[in-house]
Amino acid sequence: MKNESLRNFAHIPMQSVGPFKLIGEVETDDLMVPMATYETPLWPSVARGARVTHHAGGIRVTVIDERMTRSVLLEAPNASVALQRFQALKADQAALQAVVSETSQYAKLLDLNVQIVGNLIYLRLEFSTGDASGHNMVTNAADKLIPWILETYPDLNYVSISGNYCTDKKVSAVNGILGRGKNVVCETTIPRKLCQRFLKTTPEAIVDLHIKKDLIGSIVSGGLRTANAHVANMLLGFYLATGQDAANIVEGSQSINHVEVNANGDLYFSTTLPNLIVGTVGNGKGLDFVLDNLEQLGCADQTAKPGQNSRRLACIAGATALCGELSLLAAQTNPGELMSAHLKLERQNASS
Amino acid sequence: MKNESLRNFAHIPMQSVGPFKLIGEVETDDLMVPMATYETPLWPSVARGARVTHHAGGIRVTVIDERMTRSVLLEAPNASVALQRFQALKADQAALQAVVSETSQYAKLLDLNVQIVGNLIYLRLEFSTGDASGHNMVTNAADKLIPWILETYPDLNYVSISGNYCTDKKVSAVNGILGRGKNVVCETTIPRKLCQRFLKTTPEAIVDLHIKKDLIGSIVSGGLRTANAHVANMLLGFYLATGQDAANIVEGSQSINHVEVNANGDLYFSTTLPNLIVGTVGNGKGLDFVLDNLEQLGCADQTAKPGQNSRRLACIAGATALCGELSLLAAQTNPGELMSAHLKLERQNASS
Amino acid sequence: MKNESLRNFAHIPMQSVGPFKLIGEVETDDLMVPMATYETPLWPSVARGARVTHHAGGIRVTVIDERMTRSVLLEAPNASVALQRFQALKADQAALQAVVSETSQYAKLLDLNVQIVGNLIYLRLEFSTGDASGHNMVTNAADKLIPWILETYPDLNYVSISGNYCTDKKVSAVNGILGRGKNVVCETTIPRKLCQRFLKTTPEAIVDLHIKKDLIGSIVSGGLRTANAHVANMLLGFYLATGQDAANIVEGSQSINHVEVNANGDLYFSTTLPNLIVGTVGNGKGLDFVLDNLEQLGCADQTAKPGQNSRRLACIAGATALCGELSLLAAQTNPGELMSAHLKLERQNASS
Amino acid sequence: MKNESLRNFAHIPMQSVGPFKLIGEVETDDLMVPMATYETPLWPSVARGARVTHHAGGIRVTVIDERMTRSVLLEAPNASVALQRFQALKADQAALQAVVSETSQYAKLLDLNVQIVGNLIYLRLEFSTGDASGHNMVTNAADKLIPWILETYPDLNYVSISGNYCTDKKVSAVNGILGRGKNVVCETTIPRKLCQRFLKTTPEAIVDLHIKKDLIGSIVSGGLRTANAHVANMLLGFYLATGQDAANIVEGSQSINHVEVNANGDLYFSTTLPNLIVGTVGNGKGLDFVLDNLEQLGCADQTAKPGQNSRRLACIAGATALCGELSLLAAQTNPGELMSAHLKLERQNASS
Repeated sequence: MKNESLRNFAHIPMQSVGPFKLIGEVETDDLMVPMATYETPLWPSVARGARVTHHAGGIRVTVIDERMTRSVLLEAPNASVALQRFQALKADQAALQAVVSETSQYAKLLDLNVQIVGNLIYLRLEFSTGDASGHNMVTNAADKLIPWILETYPDLNYVSISGNYCTDKKVSAVNGILGRGKNVVCETTIPRKLCQRFLKTTPEAIVDLHIKKDLIGSIVSGGLRTANAHVANMLLGFYLATGQDAANIVEGSQSINHVEVNANGDLYFSTTLPNLIVGTVGNGKGLDFVLDNLEQLGCADQTAKPGQNSRRLACIAGATALCGELSLLAAQTNPGELMSAHLKLERQNASS
Repeated sequence: MKNESLRNFAHIPMQSVGPFKLIGEVETDDLMVPMATYETPLWPSVARGARVTHHAGGIRVTVIDERMTRSVLLEAPNASVALQRFQALKADQAALQAVVSETSQYAKLLDLNVQIVGNLIYLRLEFSTGDASGHNMVTNAADKLIPWILETYPDLNYVSISGNYCTDKKVSAVNGILGRGKNVVCETTIPRKLCQRFLKTTPEAIVDLHIKKDLIGSIVSGGLRTANAHVANMLLGFYLATGQDAANIVEGSQSINHVEVNANGDLYFSTTLPNLIVGTVGNGKGLDFVLDNLEQLGCADQTAKPGQNSRRLACIAGATALCGELSLLAAQTNPGELMSAHLKLERQNASS
Repeated sequence: MKNESLRNFAHIPMQSVGPFKLIGEVETDDLMVPMATYETPLWPSVARGARVTHHAGGIRVTVIDERMTRSVLLEAPNASVALQRFQALKADQAALQAVVSETSQYAKLLDLNVQIVGNLIYLRLEFSTGDASGHNMVTNAADKLIPWILETYPDLNYVSISGNYCTDKKVSAVNGILGRGKNVVCETTIPRKLCQRFLKTTPEAIVDLHIKKDLIGSIVSGGLRTANAHVANMLLGFYLATGQDAANIVEGSQSINHVEVNANGDLYFSTTLPNLIVGTVGNGKGLDFVLDNLEQLGCADQTAKPGQNSRRLACIAGATALCGELSLLAAQTNPGELMSAHLKLERQNASS
Repeated sequence: MKNESLRNFAHIPMQSVGPFKLIGEVETDDLMVPMATYETPLWPSVARGARVTHHAGGIRVTVIDERMTRSVLLEAPNASVALQRFQALKADQAALQAVVSETSQYAKLLDLNVQIVGNLIYLRLEFSTGDASGHNMVTNAADKLIPWILETYPDLNYVSISGNYCTDKKVSAVNGILGRGKNVVCETTIPRKLCQRFLKTTPEAIVDLHIKKDLIGSIVSGGLRTANAHVANMLLGFYLATGQDAANIVEGSQSINHVEVNANGDLYFSTTLPNLIVGTVGNGKGLDFVLDNLEQLGCADQTAKPGQNSRRLACIAGATALCGELSLLAAQTNPGELMSAHLKLERQNASS
């Protein structure tokens, strides 16, 4: 029995941390957030961020945008024909939506975007996908749209159902600029005193580190639309605990902190996550512990409108990322603190 | 009991696929590779890649380089002093190694690299770290080096133990250009007949798709040192099954396929993974199922020289990625195949 | 007199090369294109490209898009307010256009785009600007829009008239993805025999080099939306000769070749230039030699509709770039040819 | 006569601005810097920067590094052979230098770097090139090295004399990380009072704008190793006036400002230009006005050691860029100033 389980599942250590206080698009003050990870020092670090933001009045969450995309790749006789075909498709989205509607009641075509390279057409289809992250929904829609397009415009040829201009699980600029997944902004203001009491540092020290590490450091590393310390860690833990397709942390990691000392001398700290690809239905969501976790997070509300559960989930994911960012940056302002915290935790784990 | 387990672990579906045949740096022909993922259609897809490459004579694996890095961030009075201090440190690596040696018997300083921006010094320390992926080992080494540097050069100031020029779990160009983790190249040559038999396509069709999707598609998406279809998926599954810090799939996803039809009309297919951050000891490796998996992969050999187990692990990770790439690209050359394969698998899962 | 001229002007060597044959958006077969450059071997190289494409039936030019942008940078109390203000502005473009109309009869607001980072609003304003490249026109429009916006939404604050999300004369992904300047595709098909006769090489050799150099080489260099050999050279020469703001070759250099052997065994060669920032009126256009050159190119047609002269100019710029790309790639397929051509030209210049 | 000149040269308006005061690697306080450009408002803007930095004690210039590169592209039977061949070449640089020495007395091989992608070898050769920018010198060296390498290692094949991993006149990360051209840091400290007097703004306002525009704005635009306002403008003007290959402003534009308020409340302002490709001999340097300008800048010193004239030139180029950055950022802190300055200058020009 145990062997069976050993063979059929990877058991990733999981713990809930919090409580989190969120305001704005989600209002709650007692949320315990589950994270599954091999890097268990992450739990107390995020918990510290949750604690200080809770005392500070919470984390304001705002969903800027949401959409899921698939870019089909077609070929025209030349660029001039490519342009004409794109313009015709753009002008006739109702016909495309009619095809899409046959594939899912949730998939709604939002818009088309294109890159024409020589005679190649990278046609980026943007959809709303209800509470699903939508990978399969948009692939299915594209799968039906392609034959329709090829029949309607016989001078076009099929190259691929995905031309990497979508783009899924690969670093890009297109996802941040045109949108893919939920675009969530998380903001908090930490009074100077709480900064000292919980984070053992000052607003000025955090801002200074943020500028030199998150901003300039990422720029010299040849980063791309990335300005954070370790957002990927928090997203991985959150995604595994909630049944997400965790390879999407690749684009999720392209998040941007903006931090400053405000007019009152307090710390304004924000994390903007333009590419949070999450859902509350679909692959992975049927597992018992995932269902438990979604329920714990209030994201399994059967009475909610389509999309509401997954937007809530995205906001919580973003707030979790912010807490981890705030806590790590605070730690790194103090020489030696990061390593001694790690060593202390490892000794505790070893002795427990 | 079940509740306890439900609360303390995320149970990710896991399956071993194969057998894989590897040649070159690793020689084996019966390797079953475990992958843990919510996206279970990945298993048969990778298995198909393993099958065809096995018949074709295997996958040649080559380790180009290995190193782990941490970039400390210091501040000088001006750029001229910054340069002089860097030159002095570069010339006195023996002194630095003496400090490093106190922190670990495995950590060896390989080289220093720098970016000077105004008066800021992004000092990138490169280490070999034995069989550990080395995150903690290099942080620990940096933690001891910083006070030594600040005492030796009192005109320098501490800014951060990590200046994001390392860079960990964030997209960058520096990791690919200067190296971080194992740099592994995987290559295979698939005879035209096997291409048809196992992949239902031709070498020409795969090459054509690869150029327009992996290369041009990634370029127009604003990608960075990325030319693949879904390497992140295979790495995630492999990393979770083998106890790795899976957030490192962010840089792992920056992998590059190179594919062509060779002089015999056969398919040369390669996947180059410059940033495979893996280890066979350290966090996550003590869990029972992880130990089982490492043993199954031949990566828990107690008689091996330091570093050999983890290099083997990196080669297997790379080969797994190649198989998934080959299989998905082949599928996408055939309109409709991708979606119908997904639907078929989901029906099977539903009925099982 | 000579001293005066020496002090007041830099005299850059200039020559006209051709004749060029263009088809599609521009139809001509006797166009001589002026290029000003210190790198005079460029002239015979581009001329060779013009010659072979002329014999091959010409270069098809297509304008995919045109717009000029300026991104103002504003600050809101928080992200939620930022989003609401953006949505209001987006919904009321007629009011914005009314303000814009006071600044120029040519400036037309096409659309708004935004990035919200924390509480920051990077508002990208897109305009059509007639025959001007439009740098000043959009700055002027933004300069008038800002006070209007701040009065209409008193909870917003001014940060900058340009927030670098425009973006001018700096490498970016946004210009290629959302558009800035003219987006021009140039295509030609060179019969195999002409390839051999004029370029001393084969279609296969050029395609092979293109893939390994333009595509993979640019990717490993950490390039961004760039896949060419030396587009910057041709644009610089063309921009100086036609009075353009030549610092815009920075984004102009982010051009993408797509090359393949077609079904007939001939060479399909295309250069896509998504960010050609050119104009036929404005700064630099009043100089005598510039006027002469614009006239020579047919881009000073007083009877043309607004925008037509500058679209023609963009097409010619793109065709010139294609010819230089084709010629250099052909040369590099032959070991030693590049250097011996350079040496020969330099000897000629020395003896002349 | 005039017609001849009209046909054979582009006459770009040129003016000298200053005086500049430089300290550190170059010591001078009366340097007048020539700039050729169609965008003549650039002159008074740079002049303002020169004026305030002169009063503030000058601009400290530091050359961090200098090298010129060419990446040849070769093909091996597989990655394992590729690695062995690279290791052999790396271990035998004396033999390579012997070949290089036959091509130029100035070209010295500094180091080799490689990217191995599948079986492809992108071999980046780094040279010092005396006072030449070195484009031709390194191409010539590579041209001689290739046959030597192919004879020594008969299992390697030629692909290209340039594999785009050099990389010349294209955006990249490799040039900044591994170095190409002169890497120059320019720094100045402007007392608060001078900031107000000459720039009509405060240190805090400039820092705030710099962070939101240069840093965050460039990041959201999908920039790459770029954090400035308009470095390309100053480099273009300087390059044209001094006979440089101005297409190299593409990589030159990838410069990074670092700005902060120091402990005294004064403004620390720095511009780091990692890729200044300049020379004082070679193409373009023989023209009369170029010789005059190089002499005016003190960069035609026949008694100087090899490389010294071009290092001086690079420092002056960097200082010129800093002045333009400082002046424009200051202007943009004041709503309306940028546009009104432009309009005023244009009225002056129109009436003059």
